[in-house]
Amino acid sequence: MRFFDHNATTPLWAEAKAAWVEANEMHWLNPSSPYRSAAAVHAQLEQGRERLAVLFDVDPRRIVFNSGATEGNNAVFATWAKMLKATDRVVVGVTEHPSVLAAAERYFEGRIDWLPADPAGVVGPATAEWSDASAISVMAANNETGVLNPWQDWLAACRECGIPMHCDASQWIGKMPLDGLGNCDYVTGCAHKFGGPKGVGFLIMPEGSAVGLAGGAQERGRRAGTEDVAGILALVAAVEVADSKRLGCSDKHKMAFLAALEQSLPGVQVIGDRQHTLWNTVEIIMPQFKSARWIRALEKKACLVSAGSACSTGKQGTSHVLAALGVDADAAGRALRLSSGWETSAEDWEVLLGAILESFRELETDAAEPGSQVISI
Amino acid sequence: MRFFDHNATTPLWAEAKAAWVEANEMHWLNPSSPYRSAAAVHAQLEQGRERLAVLFDVDPRRIVFNSGATEGNNAVFATWAKMLKATDRVVVGVTEHPSVLAAAERYFEGRIDWLPADPAGVVGPATAEWSDASAISVMAANNETGVLNPWQDWLAACRECGIPMHCDASQWIGKMPLDGLGNCDYVTGCAHKFGGPKGVGFLIMPEGSAVGLAGGAQERGRRAGTEDVAGILALVAAVEVADSKRLGCSDKHKMAFLAALEQSLPGVQVIGDRQHTLWNTVEIIMPQFKSARWIRALEKKACLVSAGSACSTGKQGTSHVLAALGVDADAAGRALRLSSGWETSAEDWEVLLGAILESFRELETDAAEPGSQVISI
Repeated sequence: MRFFDHNATTPLWAEAKAAWVEANEMHWLNPSSPYRSAAAVHAQLEQGRERLAVLFDVDPRRIVFNSGATEGNNAVFATWAKMLKATDRVVVGVTEHPSVLAAAERYFEGRIDWLPADPAGVVGPATAEWSDASAISVMAANNETGVLNPWQDWLAACRECGIPMHCDASQWIGKMPLDGLGNCDYVTGCAHKFGGPKGVGFLIMPEGSAVGLAGGAQERGRRAGTEDVAGILALVAAVEVADSKRLGCSDKHKMAFLAALEQSLPGVQVIGDRQHTLWNTVEIIMPQFKSARWIRALEKKACLVSAGSACSTGKQGTSHVLAALGVDADAAGRALRLSSGWETSAEDWEVLLGAILESFRELETDAAEPGSQVISI
Repeated sequence: MRFFDHNATTPLWAEAKAAWVEANEMHWLNPSSPYRSAAAVHAQLEQGRERLAVLFDVDPRRIVFNSGATEGNNAVFATWAKMLKATDRVVVGVTEHPSVLAAAERYFEGRIDWLPADPAGVVGPATAEWSDASAISVMAANNETGVLNPWQDWLAACRECGIPMHCDASQWIGKMPLDGLGNCDYVTGCAHKFGGPKGVGFLIMPEGSAVGLAGGAQERGRRAGTEDVAGILALVAAVEVADSKRLGCSDKHKMAFLAALEQSLPGVQVIGDRQHTLWNTVEIIMPQFKSARWIRALEKKACLVSAGSACSTGKQGTSHVLAALGVDADAAGRALRLSSGWETSAEDWEVLLGAILESFRELETDAAEPGSQVISI
């Protein structure tokens, strides 16, 4: 299979698997147990935290390990709900991940100001009025379109206003440079987006109180529950691998693919400004045929692509991200998200191109056949 | 090492490790992705859910996978806070795990009635007035003492009153028969207590709404976030192994150990009614010397034992469980928790006995030596 859905999830790096297996053999004791052998496991956990802190250039005490981005994003708004005044409003980008949108709605119902996206999908400080904000949540890179938000500008603006900033960097980490990201007050990270295991992630946050799971002193009282040391060490191994491999990655193959695609398949529309997009991601609107038919046809040719966020699959209606970009429902129904990985080759992109062109001919033939019945999936 | 701290955590079963490794090789796609290969991963997830449902004899739709017991216990009280009236009171056993106590305090501050334990540590329906309750939380087996609560009686009583019952069965599952447990409205389970990986657990709950993580349709809308399919399949493999191995387990070796210990070390006190205790667990009050000194001395002789719940280690003060049983602070400071596993042998218990007796002589000698300085740890 040629896998073009790395924004949904990623295969586990060998290094991450090795770290998990080793931890379960060597460091499986409960790090809170009172004997020295358990203290050694606790030391492994703290060494993992320090390695991650080095990558982000933050104080290790700011890192809280958790079960993934959804928990991290929920914890940010739960913490703000406790920390801010009952009348305070939060400002949230319209293109955020569903877990940010839903957490904001749960904890700040009626007190959310939405930041619009510009026509290229970018959510920037210049695009909206937000001076009433008491806290801001803007993602680093969009999961569906790959569009990069100017989080550095947001951070500068938040510092000027003296309000906290949250950056969901789930899609940024492992693909883009980490420099400066740790300066955001809150940063969400998720292992399975960069080749780590599912079920583990982290939230960089200010020291001090936070509202995570209640019931234990773990993670400096900010997230109760026995620490998943094996998952955490696998996460750290994975981010180190991804952050190193990304140095050899660029959008070169993707750009060549897009140029060839646009030439061969007139009417294809590329979403966003392709210069300000993750190197691995592109969302395209196909000239004809629903996303689901494309996905099925391409899977038969051993190419896996997506229609949008895996998390919103199964939901009714148009992608909120495409809607925010002014894409109409009909066009949004023809969207494909292509997201490559650290080891995707020029050949993989060429195979995908061939598969798309061949699928197009087949779908056209199917449609032209009298009496052809397309079974909706 | 002879490991006598299985109530803190357990080593991973080979079957659980194999399931995790296989899932990360074969079933690593995001189960919510829109292609057939991902639907196959989703099917693996649902097969795991069905295998677990068979063990508990419940509708698979009642099972919500999560990150562990702490998340499960938090979700129960968050759900009740939303479901019950603002004046409704909940009833909670005094010997519950800290994650139940803290979640109850977070969501029902000032609206909690505490169920006392009898002198043997048992929290039963006859021991308290609880007719005002709108919901009840009573654990199946206590993590510190191993004392079994009559959850079957509680369930019958709750059915009579028409109120929901939560049973934290983290220490029961894998050690005791599962028959009837699924009839409780809410049941907490945690993989790393029965030889599964850390960071994964489940909550059996009524179908319908619940307050878990917000942001996605996973777990029928009750717990957002990409499902940790590998962790879940490892959890299911682990509970199957443990539930099968427990058939060959009994308290025989523990009882022989206790008889020999009481004969050789007069003044040892066994907590709880030893007939109504998990077969693997015993908490004892040593006649002399602080828990920490025993733990250190025994670790030097390759025996790992605990002073109480791993989760409360590092906290100041006496164990709330021992306090509830009327054990004074001085005696509680001399408590040791011994918890064996499914493969702990008669020889392991004999070695532990020898190590305790030898440690006692050494600690006595240390104490008798003029000028000996015990460094507090």
